[in-house]
Amino acid sequence: MIERLCIIGVGLIGGSVARAARAKGLCREIVGVDANADNLRKASVWGVIDAGFSDVAKGAANADVVMIATPVGSFDAIFGALKSVWSTRVVVTDAGSTKCSVIESAERVFGEVPGNFVPGHPIAGAERSGVEASTVDLFQGKRVILTPLETTSPSAIKRVESLWRSMGAKVSQMEPAHHDEVLAATSHLPHVLAFALTNMLGKKDEQREIFQFAAGGFRDFTRIASSDPKMWLDICLANRREIVPLIHQFREELSRVAGLISRGAADELYALFADARGARQRFLDQLEK
Amino acid sequence: MIERLCIIGVGLIGGSVARAARAKGLCREIVGVDANADNLRKASVWGVIDAGFSDVAKGAANADVVMIATPVGSFDAIFGALKSVWSTRVVVTDAGSTKCSVIESAERVFGEVPGNFVPGHPIAGAERSGVEASTVDLFQGKRVILTPLETTSPSAIKRVESLWRSMGAKVSQMEPAHHDEVLAATSHLPHVLAFALTNMLGKKDEQREIFQFAAGGFRDFTRIASSDPKMWLDICLANRREIVPLIHQFREELSRVAGLISRGAADELYALFADARGARQRFLDQLEK
Repeated sequence: MIERLCIIGVGLIGGSVARAARAKGLCREIVGVDANADNLRKASVWGVIDAGFSDVAKGAANADVVMIATPVGSFDAIFGALKSVWSTRVVVTDAGSTKCSVIESAERVFGEVPGNFVPGHPIAGAERSGVEASTVDLFQGKRVILTPLETTSPSAIKRVESLWRSMGAKVSQMEPAHHDEVLAATSHLPHVLAFALTNMLGKKDEQREIFQFAAGGFRDFTRIASSDPKMWLDICLANRREIVPLIHQFREELSRVAGLISRGAADELYALFADARGARQRFLDQLEK
Repeated sequence: MIERLCIIGVGLIGGSVARAARAKGLCREIVGVDANADNLRKASVWGVIDAGFSDVAKGAANADVVMIATPVGSFDAIFGALKSVWSTRVVVTDAGSTKCSVIESAERVFGEVPGNFVPGHPIAGAERSGVEASTVDLFQGKRVILTPLETTSPSAIKRVESLWRSMGAKVSQMEPAHHDEVLAATSHLPHVLAFALTNMLGKKDEQREIFQFAAGGFRDFTRIASSDPKMWLDICLANRREIVPLIHQFREELSRVAGLISRGAADELYALFADARGARQRFLDQLEK
């Protein structure tokens, strides 16, 4: 049982942690910290949190578990604010979308990564944001990746694993760099493509209406382009060393496809499309497991 | 009332036309033509069509309306087969995804585009294919674009418009070249991107598992990569003059985005992501109208 769970950033992820932790009876008290006063007020009024703070140190004081669920660009400031109230008895974890950047931030602020900080990332999200988008079952059946270091306390890891498992998630461990490499491919690159395409077509639409002739395929393809711009700005900057080479690799792939189309290479194009369809089926089969 | 509706290609689109036309009581008899014997048998057994033919000319004989709903690469062969039974009393239309290529195909076969052929395209689809994917309400509330020429018979246009409207669709007219330009942006380019990305990541997944850490955003982004490879091969080749320059334009856009990420241009990146989100909201607002 957690006596006092402090959630820093009561948005889609933080709000969903609060709702799930309460529903499962995992803690006696949940306090929230949020820089957005309106969001914090909603979280209090709706009973997602028991008390709200705008100040990180005040909110985290006396908590036994702290979960940081803010965009990854804010971690220097949050670790900095936590430093004054940092205790070896607390377990601190996070839900940041990139892991090397979060670990580097902890190193910058503390000199070394504290043993009671467990870096983590729930692979769950939505294009909506804020506490109003949070749900009690967001993590049910979803994966959570923890990326502890050799110096991370085994008991802290166990406590964080247990928290996520109690909320219905499947927890696995990975090297931080491997996490960032995998997520760059399966999440960061697709988001960049969706943003870039929607932006490019949005400009065409302003000149000559085209969106009225777009349908369900376009709606689903661009869904992630409705994601929070600040969160994705932070991810792109924090994981640029993985994302930028992948963008260029994809540009090369597109160049090859354009060449196949230009010269009417039917067999190779058909094989490419059929392989893609097969790969997606493989992905779907895993998703349903 | 249509006495005999002949549908060439009883797949997702052709099967849905048959189901909707029957449900709305638009015709006395529906015959289907399909090269795939298994698909044709299913369409007959399930009562989607009243009779099935593998031969185009036999199926189309004595029909008063013919709808061609096959991949656009097959139109030379289908027009060629229809030529022997072509009558000025029949109205022929199609559901092909590209319009210039279909019109050029008619010119090649007939010398000029027959006045009783009305080129058309329902903006409705799904990643599933075959008669088993067809539904009675696929066109309800969807757009259909007709691209008649100056020589197209006004009464033939009216008959085709009326058929689609009776099935719940919103019909508009457009120049064939403009259709191909708009659809290249809103449909063909997104499909190429989804196929190319899923193919590229599928190869990474074979080397080192990554799909198990992909989630709902990836599922929606790649949904259209499960589309029929033959249909999309035909579209890419038929509309290559619009698609290839768009791919290169998008590659330039990606190069710009990669540059912004590399040099940490936070303000410009944020603006790009926020603009994309705004453009998608504009698209969604139109979709709901």
